[in-house]
Amino acid sequence: MASLSSTVYAAGFSYGRPTPPSTNQRRMVVVRAEAINPEIRKNEDKVVDSVIVSELSKPLTAYCRCWRSGTFPLCDGGHVKHNKATGDNVGPLLLKKQ
Amino acid sequence: MASLSSTVYAAGFSYGRPTPPSTNQRRMVVVRAEAINPEIRKNEDKVVDSVIVSELSKPLTAYCRCWRSGTFPLCDGGHVKHNKATGDNVGPLLLKKQ
Repeated sequence: MASLSSTVYAAGFSYGRPTPPSTNQRRMVVVRAEAINPEIRKNEDKVVDSVIVSELSKPLTAYCRCWRSGTFPLCDGGHVKHNKATGDNVGPLLLKKQ
Repeated sequence: MASLSSTVYAAGFSYGRPTPPSTNQRRMVVVRAEAINPEIRKNEDKVVDSVIVSELSKPLTAYCRCWRSGTFPLCDGGHVKHNKATGDNVGPLLLKKQ
């Protein structure tokens, strides 16, 4: 267990329930060196998506970065539930057509 | 421990070192309901980035989705080390200007 706690210490994180974040307080979360993609295209060695920006149809398109979206690679808001459950702070990449 | 193993079972994952993936074999990895972003902008409640696609300078720009890049939101290849260490299969979002 010592190696794990030293890993956690070195990464500056602490165990226990994450305290409610205030904007300037550095959020403490537990992150283990484990996979972050539970289910998306697991038969592929590496999930890479391409977007031809000229083909974007809407002024604003949100792309998922939390690997929880049901409409991956597009964002479906799944990061809200993930962040709430884990104290994380991940969010999407927004592509804007001016 | 029982709840965790049932969670792991329900999610269709197994403990132990992930076996080397063959392309059609469904990859078995351990994913716990924990944060996926160890260090990036932890003082923000939600890390959202916007790209005005008309301002993209290169024909191809890779955006990070593994939260390990040193040049976040841009990809720096950090997913390679993450995937190797965890058996995961995450990769970037590529924005292409035709």
